[in-house]
Amino acid sequence: MKKITGGVTAPKGFTAAGIHCGIRNNQTKKDLALLYSEVPCNAAAVYTQNKVYGAPITVTKANIADGMAQAMICNSGNANTCNADGVEKAEMMCEMTAKALGISPKDIIVASTGVIGMTLNIEPIASGIPKLAPILSKEGHADAVEAIMTTDTKPKEEAYEIEIGGKTVSIGAMAKGSGMIHPNMATMLGFLTTDCAITTPMLQKALKLAVDDTFNMVSVDGDTSTNDMVSIMANGLAENPVIDSEGADFDAFLLVVKEICTSMAKKIAGDGEGATKLVECSVHHAPDTKLAKAISKSIITSSLTKAAMFGADANWGRILCAIGYTEGDFAVDTISVTISSPKGEILVCEKGAGVPFDEDKAKEILLQEEIHIDVDMQQGDGEATAWGCDLTYDYVKINGDYRT
Amino acid sequence: MKKITGGVTAPKGFTAAGIHCGIRNNQTKKDLALLYSEVPCNAAAVYTQNKVYGAPITVTKANIADGMAQAMICNSGNANTCNADGVEKAEMMCEMTAKALGISPKDIIVASTGVIGMTLNIEPIASGIPKLAPILSKEGHADAVEAIMTTDTKPKEEAYEIEIGGKTVSIGAMAKGSGMIHPNMATMLGFLTTDCAITTPMLQKALKLAVDDTFNMVSVDGDTSTNDMVSIMANGLAENPVIDSEGADFDAFLLVVKEICTSMAKKIAGDGEGATKLVECSVHHAPDTKLAKAISKSIITSSLTKAAMFGADANWGRILCAIGYTEGDFAVDTISVTISSPKGEILVCEKGAGVPFDEDKAKEILLQEEIHIDVDMQQGDGEATAWGCDLTYDYVKINGDYRT
Repeated sequence: MKKITGGVTAPKGFTAAGIHCGIRNNQTKKDLALLYSEVPCNAAAVYTQNKVYGAPITVTKANIADGMAQAMICNSGNANTCNADGVEKAEMMCEMTAKALGISPKDIIVASTGVIGMTLNIEPIASGIPKLAPILSKEGHADAVEAIMTTDTKPKEEAYEIEIGGKTVSIGAMAKGSGMIHPNMATMLGFLTTDCAITTPMLQKALKLAVDDTFNMVSVDGDTSTNDMVSIMANGLAENPVIDSEGADFDAFLLVVKEICTSMAKKIAGDGEGATKLVECSVHHAPDTKLAKAISKSIITSSLTKAAMFGADANWGRILCAIGYTEGDFAVDTISVTISSPKGEILVCEKGAGVPFDEDKAKEILLQEEIHIDVDMQQGDGEATAWGCDLTYDYVKINGDYRT
Repeated sequence: MKKITGGVTAPKGFTAAGIHCGIRNNQTKKDLALLYSEVPCNAAAVYTQNKVYGAPITVTKANIADGMAQAMICNSGNANTCNADGVEKAEMMCEMTAKALGISPKDIIVASTGVIGMTLNIEPIASGIPKLAPILSKEGHADAVEAIMTTDTKPKEEAYEIEIGGKTVSIGAMAKGSGMIHPNMATMLGFLTTDCAITTPMLQKALKLAVDDTFNMVSVDGDTSTNDMVSIMANGLAENPVIDSEGADFDAFLLVVKEICTSMAKKIAGDGEGATKLVECSVHHAPDTKLAKAISKSIITSSLTKAAMFGADANWGRILCAIGYTEGDFAVDTISVTISSPKGEILVCEKGAGVPFDEDKAKEILLQEEIHIDVDMQQGDGEATAWGCDLTYDYVKINGDYRT
């Protein structure tokens, strides 16, 4: 597996573009992204579990029910959620995009992120789409990833190359976070592209498996957004033998999908609203994987643990507390907790009780930008990792400010 | 039902005291409380569901297994949790208290609140208890309630009088919050006293029913503490006909227990760490009570909703989002949301979608110290109310500061 440049346009046949069309008032912020494959793609997606969900989710689900897509249109600045005319507007976005590209509206993935409950102004999108189509390019990935950002402070993209069946297969991704976002809420979005030849069912399987261990293990503030979606389009231009069942090729493909999703997940967590640091929590030797996942997520979601991370405080009692209130059947008196960063590692709790440790050393470790919390339960072979961030003044500021 | 003064010593036969014994360095902060009944009491308690729980919980559970207690000793400043010698120390506290009062150590309720994972220094408690016993008095409730406070900014106590079986029955309570507390975590504690004559099973039943609708409907930060406990002691001195089954007398008693627990719950929520306002959320016409409870708690626990309350932002999308990610089976397209305070009320969402409203009026409503969110689901007769507070810079400050 080799990291390459190019983001979502790294795989053969994909082009992208991003512009400011006018949904946002700030003319320096791009707000409309287009992603296109020169040939039809097998497509798969996973969606938010929130019962309140955006109109673009309704429309995308319908459009890729046949397992196919060829383009993706995404605006930022308005989530098109909780609007009476939301589905109609999302369908209009597909029709406009299809017309500009000369393809079917049913082959479009549509996404929106931004304010909810505010009617989507279709005018800027209607005038923007015809401008986007002619400027689609291999270099456009950088503009596209900018256009899907909301409170993100950094663009999030990545690409990898692997060998499958003697052919070089590429996979690219772009994503956005970063919490439910000012002013109302928004969305975690991930768009993956690949030139791998793979059937839709296997594509869906790979995406689901990867997302469960990556995007679904991220929490910025415990609030499940209404518009979350991760999609993948596979156009087959790598000409590898089609992956149509499990086996070595599928495993290789899954590995790279997981790798790119892990990278996106970490970028989203580390760029959480107001965050000053990424917190990675791994649970080892849990009774089973499900509990390992639940416990690692419980820790990175705990407001008190997050505030302690902000304060660089090795406050292991809060970690143990968050373990203790996780639902499930497990013992606490075998648990040890280690905290580490590039500055070193330190054992803070053993057999469920505190051990003496050097507070100055702990503080030095916790002042870094990427912190690891390792929990060893010594009760089985369940393993999981979750990613979060610290809780800061800026989180409160970003989310407490009056909408303007 | 009549509100009276006197807190936990309002009922006949109860006395209390509180002093600074030296667990805390700050000599102006009382840190040891004693509560005593001149005759043995029927006793009941409910405890944290966290699998990591304090040694005092272990000891109290054992002591009141026979349904009896006569005194309560509580220190603040150290939670005596996650300590290898915790149970031993908690038992020592009971023995010392019993000796000072001339009763059995098995008739003591013991509680601790403060730092976890730090060995409890028994010396100040050993020297404090013999000082406390001689100064027990009717006026002592005010010192006792101060002594159990940690980051609480206000003492929390209340007392009521009712008629049961032709006799005047009193009930008193003191409680503390207010989140899991600096520097590690702490505890929600509630201590109720009554001179009502009631059997232990009926006392336990009344407490459980009341706590489920009150203390258990409070969330300051979603973190379930390790030391939470609510206890009640009933000494029978009111000489009412003993309540030994359900009926009119039990209903009257339950009503006043619920009232006093509601009052304590609201005081704890409103005095949550860093809070500037109390947020009360009522869900009406839910499919059932369980869902009504889950949804109201989901709303008051949502970090984004809490931050919006801090910013006086009528950000109903976050409320709908928190409803949507509540587990359970319900529709969202019939839901309306109203926000109110002493400054008025305003409908912000109807049939699951936004309605136009006056933002200035909404802001005026939300700038008050007590905010009500009413959610009408129009799907059944489930009703519930939960209490929380806003998420503020001070919450982050209190919990992010390095332990000193």
